[in-house]
Amino acid sequence: MNVAVGVDLGGTNTILGVVNSQGDILFKKTVSTNQFKQPDDWVNWVAQTINEYRLDNAEYLIEGVGIGAPNGNIRTGHIAFAPNLIWQGEVPLADMVKRATKLPVVLTNDANAAALGEMLFGVARGLKDFLYITLGTGLGSGVVCNGEMVYGHDGFAGEVGHMTLIPGGRLCACGRLGCVEAYCSATAIRQTYLDCAGSHSSIDAKVISEWARAGDEAAKLAFSQTGEWLGLALANCVAVTSPEKIILFGGLAQAGDLLLEPTRKSFEINLLKIYEINSHYLSQLSDNDAAILER
Amino acid sequence: MNVAVGVDLGGTNTILGVVNSQGDILFKKTVSTNQFKQPDDWVNWVAQTINEYRLDNAEYLIEGVGIGAPNGNIRTGHIAFAPNLIWQGEVPLADMVKRATKLPVVLTNDANAAALGEMLFGVARGLKDFLYITLGTGLGSGVVCNGEMVYGHDGFAGEVGHMTLIPGGRLCACGRLGCVEAYCSATAIRQTYLDCAGSHSSIDAKVISEWARAGDEAAKLAFSQTGEWLGLALANCVAVTSPEKIILFGGLAQAGDLLLEPTRKSFEINLLKIYEINSHYLSQLSDNDAAILER
Repeated sequence: MNVAVGVDLGGTNTILGVVNSQGDILFKKTVSTNQFKQPDDWVNWVAQTINEYRLDNAEYLIEGVGIGAPNGNIRTGHIAFAPNLIWQGEVPLADMVKRATKLPVVLTNDANAAALGEMLFGVARGLKDFLYITLGTGLGSGVVCNGEMVYGHDGFAGEVGHMTLIPGGRLCACGRLGCVEAYCSATAIRQTYLDCAGSHSSIDAKVISEWARAGDEAAKLAFSQTGEWLGLALANCVAVTSPEKIILFGGLAQAGDLLLEPTRKSFEINLLKIYEINSHYLSQLSDNDAAILER
Repeated sequence: MNVAVGVDLGGTNTILGVVNSQGDILFKKTVSTNQFKQPDDWVNWVAQTINEYRLDNAEYLIEGVGIGAPNGNIRTGHIAFAPNLIWQGEVPLADMVKRATKLPVVLTNDANAAALGEMLFGVARGLKDFLYITLGTGLGSGVVCNGEMVYGHDGFAGEVGHMTLIPGGRLCACGRLGCVEAYCSATAIRQTYLDCAGSHSSIDAKVISEWARAGDEAAKLAFSQTGEWLGLALANCVAVTSPEKIILFGGLAQAGDLLLEPTRKSFEINLLKIYEINSHYLSQLSDNDAAILER
């Protein structure tokens, strides 16, 4: 049987999976990314894991490796200045993995990889025009138009997190002011909660959602404000590509209706009136396997 | 010889042209749009003009009619609630022209038609990923990704003019607040000039550009502010589709460097750092024939 290796390189964890052409995950291994101080160490782990898998599964032919990584560029095969990775500068990761594994390698950004996975095997099957948003440490996005992933002429399309939402607003990790990501991400909602609560305690998005469910006013307000911002940001995206569906993924999306209800409300208010809305427009996914299904 | 009819239905003028497959314009007729109180009257003029052309040019086979119109939708063939036309509601214009001419008819929005024209015959030849912006009464846009026009799932992609630029900002003709179009259009710069000058005199974009060239401070400021807004709006669009080129067209773009210099400056400041900029990124067109070349 022919199979492919998918690798999700995240700021926290790296997940390596082996999938068949039906999208079944045959093998999966997770490791902490930060233990690899240099890209070479990470590449060695990937190559070694693949080789071990090959030895144990000689009947499977591995056709290639697909890597989803923050700031991954499909045109160059490089990771370029990813703020959430400890590796500095530009890393030619696709070539490095190719040399180490002797396999064809495709690298793209993590949100594009996830969007492709959903298009091939998941909730986006059959969709020609959709927007895929990951709400994690940052806000990643994959844009699909006319049934094709939009990479843009340089491979850097889908940086919805770095559209300016509030001119002159919050400082973003990218160094600019007012980016969508500075308002709509797991990191951002911590800031929003602190602003709402007027406190300085350290707290993460998951705790904020638990507190909101328990009735904490500041936590509820943090979610409703985040939803207002996200709804506006998504309405802005619709005005460019008019997707059939927007798919939300990632840690913050797992807050469910806490986030989705204010997002939907703001989305409807901010959407240009010519666009129809149906109740399935915004979907939330809970599956964590999406990002490793890229080929 | 096989030819096609292109019709640019504008808020002010309607231009009908006959083009061959090389994009040469063989015939062109302009008429004021507002004289047609009802869509039927306009359709009759189109059919009559085509029939007269057929009688005079029996050697040419007309393959079909392409119409570019504000709020034109390629999926439905309708014009939907176009704020710059006197016709109310939803008009099934493609079907009406088809019945009157017995020709195949395609209708799309004017900016998409213009972008297609530029892709087939103009400055966008060979470009796979570009953004086409018309700065007229409103701000129209055509988005091309992977060599294909992006219509979106409902035909309403490319409403860049109705992305929110300034949350809670100026009232837009669409009824929402802070749209790009309310800051970056020939109509908007009149408001900007009045805000800068503190006066209430009636003045149009062309006069403002003449005054700016003559050294009028308020007029210069109006252009530099408009360029700041436009540069930010375009940087936001790049974060979605990362086009190779942005092509600016329409009355306001004809102000040339008065608008382009502050736009470029703001664009570079607001663009995410991973995107390369070259001096040809923003191009201004002076040709008025683009919108009638759609097929």
